[in-house]
Amino acid sequence: MTRWVRFRKGDAVGFGTLDGTSIAVHAGDMFAHPQATGDTYALDDVALLMPCTPGKVLGMWRNYRALNHKNGVSDPVDPLYFIKANTSLADPGTTIRPPTGFSGTVIFEGELGVVLGKQATAVDPDAAEACIFGYTCVNDVTATEPLQDTVFPHWTRAKGFDTFGPLGPCIRTDLDWRAAHVRVLLDGVERQNYPLADMVMSPATLVSRLSWDMTLMPGDVIAVGTSVGVGRLKPGCTVSVEIDGIGALTNRYG
Amino acid sequence: MTRWVRFRKGDAVGFGTLDGTSIAVHAGDMFAHPQATGDTYALDDVALLMPCTPGKVLGMWRNYRALNHKNGVSDPVDPLYFIKANTSLADPGTTIRPPTGFSGTVIFEGELGVVLGKQATAVDPDAAEACIFGYTCVNDVTATEPLQDTVFPHWTRAKGFDTFGPLGPCIRTDLDWRAAHVRVLLDGVERQNYPLADMVMSPATLVSRLSWDMTLMPGDVIAVGTSVGVGRLKPGCTVSVEIDGIGALTNRYG
Repeated sequence: MTRWVRFRKGDAVGFGTLDGTSIAVHAGDMFAHPQATGDTYALDDVALLMPCTPGKVLGMWRNYRALNHKNGVSDPVDPLYFIKANTSLADPGTTIRPPTGFSGTVIFEGELGVVLGKQATAVDPDAAEACIFGYTCVNDVTATEPLQDTVFPHWTRAKGFDTFGPLGPCIRTDLDWRAAHVRVLLDGVERQNYPLADMVMSPATLVSRLSWDMTLMPGDVIAVGTSVGVGRLKPGCTVSVEIDGIGALTNRYG
Repeated sequence: MTRWVRFRKGDAVGFGTLDGTSIAVHAGDMFAHPQATGDTYALDDVALLMPCTPGKVLGMWRNYRALNHKNGVSDPVDPLYFIKANTSLADPGTTIRPPTGFSGTVIFEGELGVVLGKQATAVDPDAAEACIFGYTCVNDVTATEPLQDTVFPHWTRAKGFDTFGPLGPCIRTDLDWRAAHVRVLLDGVERQNYPLADMVMSPATLVSRLSWDMTLMPGDVIAVGTSVGVGRLKPGCTVSVEIDGIGALTNRYG
């Protein structure tokens, strides 16, 4: 069990493994034979960054049975997905900002993020598991009005505003996701609490299916979708996405 | 007037300015004070690569009056756009591949690509022009069936298969785009020929409008949309997207 983090310390950006409140600094490529340097930093002495810098983030729709049932829609047989602009990604602890000049509703969506560790092109389900490096928390922040356009449901815009993609706080390897829950706390009050086992398509299934559409690269993230309980962000609130075994991704909105 | 190219020569990747058939090699960052090294290579001695490696490619819909008129739809008042997966990008001269296990229709769409040279966040129209580095040709290859899904028009999938984004052959700075045409030749037969001046939203307007939604980064590409004449790619055909002053982006399909 390992928790990988990226961090800023002074002017330098680094990465390493988190054990309690101590980070064992590593060098090289997180996804290809990273080497411990022997240095350790206290967690309190660094600022955590998003744990990887994805070339692309693919977000899933309708991937939880409970939410589909609530909405009266069938579970999809194919992955339904959009790309979340990588410029929308945000570090743990930073502020999610309402888009300038946009007065519509903005909601939180707590999700599991699957982080690729190996390039995946047209991989079979059996081989997909080995392409997964680990798991992180995603807040798939969304402006709802652009999705309601009947001519062109505007997924790219709705999901892509700057700061609409908090990611972190770490990447947890060998997570037993089937036993884990996603919880979202809004100003300390629980708003989402759903089991990852309720997913329609599992992480490995998604990696396989998506890899037949497009090559997945190390560091790419699949946000596997959300379930019941999403709600509005109001200026000044604090939202925390927590997954057992990974930790809490906490951001202010305002 | 400058034409920037990226290239592979042996195992090395480089970039420089193209003058006739000679490349003046440069070092550093193409978008920030690149320096001529003094070396020159013959164009025939290198393989051209896509001229930049975008963090994101934003593709526009319904941005030409002639095609909107033909389709009986109004010109949009806001940019309608999707993200084209950066893993779909392809070099000039490479082969566009039908997706594995996908038997549906695949079409070409010849387009102008606007390449950002400066970071753009919430820039006004007056300041947007200065954020543009130059212009290139894009073939916005598209699988049509995923767009016809009535529950979820699947833009990301339709546009994002590997090799569906040929880009190049160069980035032309200070292009007089208002005087230029996009031509597409399929096996040497002209299939598209439309004036860039027919655009609904100009490059600078798009840069400004999009920059209020999301930060645009140096090297990001805006594919400004296509007009009349798109058509099917058939195995074995060769497709060439040509824009006056930029050159020809030629790829085989099969």
